[in-house]
Amino acid sequence: MAENESIHAQRIDHVRSLGYDAVIVSGTDPHCSEYVAPRWKQVEWLSGFTGEAGDVVVTQDHAGLWTDSRFFIQAEVQLFGTGVELHPMRVPAQVTIPEWLAGRFDKKPVRIAVDGLCQSVGAIKELKEALEAAYGPEGYEIEDLPDMLSRFWSERPGIPDSTVIQPDEKTMGESRSERLAWLRAAVKEAGCESIFISALDEIAWLLNVRGNDIDYNPFVISYLLVTPKRAVWFVRHEEDVPALTGVENAPYTALEELFDSLKEECGRLMADPSTLNWHMYRQLKERFQGRHFQLLKSPVPLRKAVKNKKELEGFRRAYIEDGVAMETFLHWLETSVRSGAAVTEWEAAAQLEAIRSRNVNYRGQCFATISAYGPNAALPHYSTPREGSAVIKPKGLYLCDAGAHFPYGTTDTTRTVPMGRCSRQEKEDYTLVLKGMVDLSLAVFPEGTAGCQIDALARMPLWKASRNFGHGTGHGIGFWLGDHEGPQDIRQNFNPQPLLPGMVISNEPGLYREGKHGVRHENVVLCHEADKSEFGRFYSFETLTCCHIDLSIVKKKLLTDRELDWLRAYNRTVYRMLKSHLAPEVARWLKRKCR
Amino acid sequence: MAENESIHAQRIDHVRSLGYDAVIVSGTDPHCSEYVAPRWKQVEWLSGFTGEAGDVVVTQDHAGLWTDSRFFIQAEVQLFGTGVELHPMRVPAQVTIPEWLAGRFDKKPVRIAVDGLCQSVGAIKELKEALEAAYGPEGYEIEDLPDMLSRFWSERPGIPDSTVIQPDEKTMGESRSERLAWLRAAVKEAGCESIFISALDEIAWLLNVRGNDIDYNPFVISYLLVTPKRAVWFVRHEEDVPALTGVENAPYTALEELFDSLKEECGRLMADPSTLNWHMYRQLKERFQGRHFQLLKSPVPLRKAVKNKKELEGFRRAYIEDGVAMETFLHWLETSVRSGAAVTEWEAAAQLEAIRSRNVNYRGQCFATISAYGPNAALPHYSTPREGSAVIKPKGLYLCDAGAHFPYGTTDTTRTVPMGRCSRQEKEDYTLVLKGMVDLSLAVFPEGTAGCQIDALARMPLWKASRNFGHGTGHGIGFWLGDHEGPQDIRQNFNPQPLLPGMVISNEPGLYREGKHGVRHENVVLCHEADKSEFGRFYSFETLTCCHIDLSIVKKKLLTDRELDWLRAYNRTVYRMLKSHLAPEVARWLKRKCR
Repeated sequence: MAENESIHAQRIDHVRSLGYDAVIVSGTDPHCSEYVAPRWKQVEWLSGFTGEAGDVVVTQDHAGLWTDSRFFIQAEVQLFGTGVELHPMRVPAQVTIPEWLAGRFDKKPVRIAVDGLCQSVGAIKELKEALEAAYGPEGYEIEDLPDMLSRFWSERPGIPDSTVIQPDEKTMGESRSERLAWLRAAVKEAGCESIFISALDEIAWLLNVRGNDIDYNPFVISYLLVTPKRAVWFVRHEEDVPALTGVENAPYTALEELFDSLKEECGRLMADPSTLNWHMYRQLKERFQGRHFQLLKSPVPLRKAVKNKKELEGFRRAYIEDGVAMETFLHWLETSVRSGAAVTEWEAAAQLEAIRSRNVNYRGQCFATISAYGPNAALPHYSTPREGSAVIKPKGLYLCDAGAHFPYGTTDTTRTVPMGRCSRQEKEDYTLVLKGMVDLSLAVFPEGTAGCQIDALARMPLWKASRNFGHGTGHGIGFWLGDHEGPQDIRQNFNPQPLLPGMVISNEPGLYREGKHGVRHENVVLCHEADKSEFGRFYSFETLTCCHIDLSIVKKKLLTDRELDWLRAYNRTVYRMLKSHLAPEVARWLKRKCR
Repeated sequence: MAENESIHAQRIDHVRSLGYDAVIVSGTDPHCSEYVAPRWKQVEWLSGFTGEAGDVVVTQDHAGLWTDSRFFIQAEVQLFGTGVELHPMRVPAQVTIPEWLAGRFDKKPVRIAVDGLCQSVGAIKELKEALEAAYGPEGYEIEDLPDMLSRFWSERPGIPDSTVIQPDEKTMGESRSERLAWLRAAVKEAGCESIFISALDEIAWLLNVRGNDIDYNPFVISYLLVTPKRAVWFVRHEEDVPALTGVENAPYTALEELFDSLKEECGRLMADPSTLNWHMYRQLKERFQGRHFQLLKSPVPLRKAVKNKKELEGFRRAYIEDGVAMETFLHWLETSVRSGAAVTEWEAAAQLEAIRSRNVNYRGQCFATISAYGPNAALPHYSTPREGSAVIKPKGLYLCDAGAHFPYGTTDTTRTVPMGRCSRQEKEDYTLVLKGMVDLSLAVFPEGTAGCQIDALARMPLWKASRNFGHGTGHGIGFWLGDHEGPQDIRQNFNPQPLLPGMVISNEPGLYREGKHGVRHENVVLCHEADKSEFGRFYSFETLTCCHIDLSIVKKKLLTDRELDWLRAYNRTVYRMLKSHLAPEVARWLKRKCR
């Protein structure tokens, strides 16, 4: 710890030596990604914190990490001795970075530095509003220092350059040229002629390309400019990148110079403020002044979220194949643990990975498998350590949350399984979480309904027992893209996006008791049209996930007949779909489990 | 019809003669009220439409009425032959007045007149934004013509001047001086020193006064200015109005002149843009320029919505007394209709009124009783006609939605009752609506939950049968104030206001089949704290309404045991609470009904 301490203290001093009142180092990359490549793990380099969400602020007398409740325990451990203080977010008393900075300084003007490449336009707008309210329009300055940390970070990794993959367009259900034609029409519809896209999943979807530039995310680090006549892909090592029909390649690092030559043909240009970085925004704004540059929501996420027929075919296949792996794994785990073998959480995750890898189409995890036993499962985002992970004993609950990429879809499944005797509280929590998942699975709702309007269904059984969980119930899932994608979700926050037929979304209520146990049941569901009547169109969910749910510890009196029927029918379907693909002993075991 | 036609055509021509491109005549009053006194029934005078929500726009070549789906059928009947066209609102293809005006004219500047007294600041802001986007900042003019219609409306009623009532402050649970002291602190909290209040229910609550200036609404038409030292009540006929301790009276019609003299002591003044009229806003803005006048949400509605102990005591009493009236009425109705008497909807409503009037504390209806039989009940806002209302036959469903004022609370109850044989569809609709009402009654939810997050509970049974209803599920209810009050509600629209312990709110799902029948079951519930656990505070509902629910036509297989248990326990409680207050034959009848 002493060494780490001095390393991080030294790095923070480097940042202080820039001479600003405050320096913000953000946890994202120039594409506002959720997961980032090693080059942009700036928060980790600076503070040692490895969580997926966090920003650091360094002032002359303070260094703080802002992260949310998912990462509090991890942050406390990793920040110990670094002198970096935790600023908790997503708690009632939260103070955001803009709010904190607005109340911090007496002198004027307050001088703040950011790496503009790693700040969204939206984040800077919020910051400016807070600073202006506190210090007046002349009372602050925000300076853009692109790639700021490179000055001190001598071993900083380069921009990643994994091989660009061109998936079979037939599997995608839509060709690149169809998607670009649709995009051009959508841009016109929005009153513009061209669009500049920074979001990596949008680019991967539009161009039908995949890569391995970021762990768990099959993206290619790049920007895309689509004008009425051309599509220019700003991508590193342009010689290494295949020429895509209808697309011109240009260098990633020198795109600013190209803007001038492109300006004429762009006409009115749009970009999405939630994913455009501030540095690029400033470059674009300088060139496309006034009415020629508009910050507008990108039309891509919604279109991408509504899966086409081919994509849904692929999803169904992916969930069956991943179900085979999951059942094989769960059979192995139960057999091993009950036979007295000392299996650790890490070994269990490794075994699942080995089983999945038997499928030649497996393209890797879409997030690091959460393999958590007993009290560890009480951390919804538990990061299973390679060394010293817990041994899974033949009692209590084990939780496995794992997702896989296939060229025909992405999966995300959580199963909590009893490893032996369970306490009454474990059984009750297990049953109530399951009840919530089933109730949401059984929902029917009219056209226009948003996720936040039905989120309570998954929580009501817990609420009635004075229990609750602190994360969202459902997130969209990409087609061999990100494990989390918008614009829809199912959570308490007001998100006006209605659920639409073709959207794929997770259904994952949970319950976490610190120091005791954790439960989460997660299926992935497809929204589809269920009926049309004189009262309008009604939608419901079809469950895609194909992996049995252990009913042995369910407290039946907490379930209605309808809920039990659903669970039994689900398990029967799982067995019927999987039996022919399983090893005989696994099939026999599953038959027993699904009885 | 011919006479009406020419009257309305003539009046519209008068409005045209003002010489504007468009004149907007709104359906509200200078206090942005939902119900208005005859003086402000301007839409009715101009177009003949009597619904509670509607605005008219008159251009040189068009006259249109904008109203929502609740009033379409009524509007079609009442506008027939007037030349006024219906513009439907709350439908997917709705075009609001600002949008319609923005797309209407070729010339510039477009000149629009409004009665600024009857337009909220918010409505004018929306109008300006639409016009500026369409015609540019110089391309339009909005003129304020206060009391515009008085130029042509020779018999226009005056400002109402009902007797001002001072309720017993003990019943209110809080004195005027306590409320004013709280308000001054709340205004300070908001960064201001004084507040100008236009909303009539806020004034009635703050000053502990009631009146009869508006049908169904016990309000006194007035404005209130509260400064750190004084409370000035701008109220008509100041000599007739009692002197309230701590309050100075001033004339309603001459308040603008008083502003100058008050300006100094007001300091920073706030007013709520959702209830402040545009005319008054302009007067205030002119005098309290820049930072001295702030448009801010009034703190009163939230505080008023959270009922104190005394108010809740009163509510409980009111619901029992109104339950006695309702049961006496329902017994009379069933007995009369089954004995072969030809009871009309109007006569039924009159009988309920007569029964209620036996209670000396009854202070009148809080809205016109909806007494609707058969297909008429399919209109959620059916207005029972005095002449020619339907005869209630001994078959099918009868719906009665009625509310009463007492000095100790306001009630609002809907019962749908089978008058004899019912069709399978009637029974099913009846049961599913009831199921939704019970499911919402059984809800438990964490602190912070808003109504839109649990609204789906009341709808899910209908949704699962591909049915739905087009109105909100619940609205707040005043304490001897308006039947509708905010800030909370239970509906699909995103309203971030959490439900809080002490809030009183209706639970009234429905189902309407045009030309066939309508069902609505409405109880009023109180939000209270149910439990506190390691997962936080949890709230639930206590039902205040005390009137049995007819279970004779319920399709039991559509209900869970839990739901049936709730219904049976509810009826048992109703019988227990009411039996000693009922006439013996009514008590015997109710005992049978509640068995």
